[in-house]
Amino acid sequence: MSSDRLAVTVVGLGSMGSALAAALLERGHPTTVWNRSPHKAQPLVDRGARLAATPEEAIAASPLTIACVLDYEALHTVLDPVAGSLAGKVLVNLTSGSPEQAHEAVAWARSHGADYLDGAIMTTPPGVGSPEMMFLYSGSRAVFEAHRPTLATLGDPLYLGDDLGLASLYDAALLGLMWSTMTGWLHGTALVGAEKTEATTFTPVAIRWLTAVAGFLTTYASQVDAGRYPGDDATVDVQIATIDHLIHAAAARNIDNALPELLKTTMERAKAAGHGSDSYASVIEVLKNPAGGE
Amino acid sequence: MSSDRLAVTVVGLGSMGSALAAALLERGHPTTVWNRSPHKAQPLVDRGARLAATPEEAIAASPLTIACVLDYEALHTVLDPVAGSLAGKVLVNLTSGSPEQAHEAVAWARSHGADYLDGAIMTTPPGVGSPEMMFLYSGSRAVFEAHRPTLATLGDPLYLGDDLGLASLYDAALLGLMWSTMTGWLHGTALVGAEKTEATTFTPVAIRWLTAVAGFLTTYASQVDAGRYPGDDATVDVQIATIDHLIHAAAARNIDNALPELLKTTMERAKAAGHGSDSYASVIEVLKNPAGGE
Ligand SMILES: NC(=O)c1ccc[n+]([C@@H]2O[C@H](COP(=O)([O-])OP(=O)(O)OC[C@H]3O[C@@H](n4cnc5c(N)ncnc54)[C@H](OP(=O)(O)O)[C@@H]3O)[C@@H](O)[C@H]2O)c1
Ligand SMILES: NC(=O)c1ccc[n+]([C@@H]2O[C@H](COP(=O)([O-])OP(=O)(O)OC[C@H]3O[C@@H](n4cnc5c(N)ncnc54)[C@H](OP(=O)(O)O)[C@@H]3O)[C@@H](O)[C@H]2O)c1
Repeated sequence: MSSDRLAVTVVGLGSMGSALAAALLERGHPTTVWNRSPHKAQPLVDRGARLAATPEEAIAASPLTIACVLDYEALHTVLDPVAGSLAGKVLVNLTSGSPEQAHEAVAWARSHGADYLDGAIMTTPPGVGSPEMMFLYSGSRAVFEAHRPTLATLGDPLYLGDDLGLASLYDAALLGLMWSTMTGWLHGTALVGAEKTEATTFTPVAIRWLTAVAGFLTTYASQVDAGRYPGDDATVDVQIATIDHLIHAAAARNIDNALPELLKTTMERAKAAGHGSDSYASVIEVLKNPAGGE
Repeated sequence: MSSDRLAVTVVGLGSMGSALAAALLERGHPTTVWNRSPHKAQPLVDRGARLAATPEEAIAASPLTIACVLDYEALHTVLDPVAGSLAGKVLVNLTSGSPEQAHEAVAWARSHGADYLDGAIMTTPPGVGSPEMMFLYSGSRAVFEAHRPTLATLGDPLYLGDDLGLASLYDAALLGLMWSTMTGWLHGTALVGAEKTEATTFTPVAIRWLTAVAGFLTTYASQVDAGRYPGDDATVDVQIATIDHLIHAAAARNIDNALPELLKTTMERAKAAGHGSDSYASVIEVLKNPAGGE
C-alpha cells in the first residue's frame, strides 16, 4: 500500500482503538496495528492494516504511534519494556486517565526521547471519523500542529494548551457534565413516565430545552470569570422556591429524589453564603469552597 | 387601537407578565392589563395597553385572559373574588405550580364556566416573543388550537395533551434537567478553573459536548421505552471506573464532590441491580425503584 499520508501505528485494538485504526485506513493512512489479543486485528488487516508481531515492531513502523488501551497500567505494561524504541517518535496517548497520570507519562516519554501529546476522545467508537466529534489534545503546540492533519482523520482536533494535564482535566470535567445531564434527564424521564409519557416523546423537548440551557451557560460563564453574578433573569432564591415543585411531584410518584435534594441543598448553601439574590452561576462559589469559607 | 388580532388580557405584571403583555402589544393585540401594584403597568400603557381598574374589568375586556402571577396562592387571591366574571371566557394560566395545583385550578375554572389551559414558560423574560422559545400547554386540544395563533405571539406553543397536569410536570422535569446540567457544568468549570482555564474558554467546548450528549439521550430514550439497555457504546461498569478520575481530580483541587459522589453511588446502585454491563440508560431503573426492588 502506498500513500502520501503519514504512516501511523495504533497500539490497542479494543472497541475504541479499532475505530481509530479503521478511520485511519479509511482515509488512506498506511496503518500498522498491535493488540495484546492479536485476533482483534483481523477485521483491520482485512481492510489493509499491517499487523505487527510485537509492540516494538509496531512503533518502529511509523513516525507516529497512537495508543488507546484500557488505562495507564495497561499502557505501561505494553510500552515500558519497549520504551527504547520510542526515541525520535511521536506518541499520542488517547488512553483515559487523570491529569497526574498524563504528567507522569510525558516525563517518561521524554526520558526516552519521544515527543508526547495527551488526548481525550469525546465520542463513542461509532462517532470516530466524524468531523463533528471533538478530540482534545494538550502538550507541545509544535507537535500538535505538525500532526494536526493526521489527527483530523479521527475527529475535530482541539488544542487546549501546553499544560499536559489539560486534555484529561477537560475530559473529566466534560464527563461530569455528561453524567449530571444524563442523570437529570433520566430523573425527568422517570417523572413524566409516571404519567405515561414515553421517553421518546419527552426527549426531543428535553433536547430542545438544552439549547436554551446552553444559552444560560454562555451568560453565566462571563459572570463566573467576572466573579459577579447579577440575578436579573432568575435568582437562587427563585430556584430554591421552584425546585420544591419537582421534589414534591417526584416524591408523589415514588421516584428517587437524591439528585434534586442534593441540588436544593447546594442552592441553599449558596443562599447561606449570601447569594440568594444572585444568579445560579453563584453556586460555583460553594463548589470552590466546600468548607463554606469564602 | 383597532386590530384584527384577538383582544387579550394579562393579569400579573411582574417581570414575566410584563414581557408577555409587551409581546402581545408588539404584535398588535389589543391588550388589557391588571396588576396588584398598578404602577408596573405604566410602561405597557405607554405602548398602548389599557389598564383595567379591577381584575373583573380586566377579564371582561377580552375573550382570553393570561394569568402570570407568583404562585397559585396569588392566583386565587386575585381571581377567587371575581370568578363569576370568567363565565364564557378562556383562562390560560402561566403561573408555575405543581400538576396537582393545575388539576385543582381547572376544576375551579370549569365550575365557573371558563375554559382553561395550563401552561409553562421555558424561557426567561427576555426570551418571550422569540419563536425559538418553548411554551408548553396542556388541557383541551380544541381550546389550544383555537388560540394557537395568539399563543404563538409569546413563543413556540407546544401542546402536550389533554391531561391538565402535563405542562407543569414537563416544567418540573425540564427544570430538573436544567439544574443538573448547570450544576455539572459549574463543577467542571470549577475543576478546569483550578488550572487557570477561564469559564468563557471552557464553556464553548462544554456546549459543543452537550450536542454530543443530546445524541446519547436520543439513543437512550428508545432504550428506556423498550426497557432494554444494551451497553454497546459504554457500560455502567465503564462509567463507574471513569468517574473516579473526576472525583480524584476534583478532590485534589479542593472542589466539592457531592455531585459526582452521588452520581457514582447512583451508578453503583444500577450495577448492584444487575446493570453493570448495560448502558447508562439503565440507571432509570433505580430512580424508578428507590427501594432497590425491581
Ligand atoms: N469506548 C468509548 O466509548 C470510549 C470513549 C472515550 C474514551 N475511551 C477510552 O479509550 C480507552 C480504550 O477503551 P475501549 O472502549 O477500546 O476499551 P476496550 O474495548 O475494553 O479495550 C481495551 C483495550 O486495552 C487493552 N488492554 C487492557 N489491559 C491490557 C493489558 N494489561 N495489557 C495490554 N493491553 C491491555 C485491551 O487488549 P485486549 O484486546 O488484549 O484485551 C484492548 O486493546 C480507554 O481508556 C477508554 O476510557 C473509550
Ligand atoms: N421570571 C422567569 O424567568 C420565569 C420563567 C418561567 C416561569 N416564570 C413564572 O412566572 C410567574 C411570575 O414570575 P415573575 O418572574 O413575573 O415574578 P415577579 O416578577 O416576582 O412577579 C410576581 C407577580 O405576582 C404578583 N403577585 C405576587 N403575590 C401576589 C398577591 N398575593 N396578590 C396579587 N398579585 C401577587 C406580583 O404583583 P405585584 O407587582 O403587585 O407584586 C407580580 O405581578 C411565576 O410563577 C414564575 O415561576 C418566571
